[in-house]
Amino acid sequence: MKYHVTLLIELKDGILDPQGRAVESILQGLQFKAQNVRVGRVLEMEVEAGSEAEASAVAHNIGKALANPVMEVFVVEAVKELV
Amino acid sequence: MKYHVTLLIELKDGILDPQGRAVESILQGLQFKAQNVRVGRVLEMEVEAGSEAEASAVAHNIGKALANPVMEVFVVEAVKELV
Repeated sequence: MKYHVTLLIELKDGILDPQGRAVESILQGLQFKAQNVRVGRVLEMEVEAGSEAEASAVAHNIGKALANPVMEVFVVEAVKELV
Repeated sequence: MKYHVTLLIELKDGILDPQGRAVESILQGLQFKAQNVRVGRVLEMEVEAGSEAEASAVAHNIGKALANPVMEVFVVEAVKELV
């Protein structure tokens, strides 16, 4: 079966995020009351697996492979079966 | 009140995503059965608003301001009140 996986990879708290700072100052310039903006990556993909639990495990392994453990954390945001 | 907002900005379907292709070939090289990998941005921020509905509306306006309407779509993934 195929599963749609959404994976977030973000900088750890405390790691300086210049891109987030830039977006924050743009938003504040546009009069949005936004603070502590952090920019990360989102990966959407289709994964082949026998069950939702297996797809979730595969997604965790993919996150481990792609995120830099020193600076980044990953979150498996969603695993949905494709019909 | 402050709300934590998660906003996803992704390339529209059909727009070529070279970064996604690169990640896909890396994952396949690592024997992961991943297909149709798409890479986008995730923005996490704190937003000042009077209610959850207002925070959600602010998040939509921020998405409109930051996403390129020709190539990208945005999704307000989550709005959570901060305590």
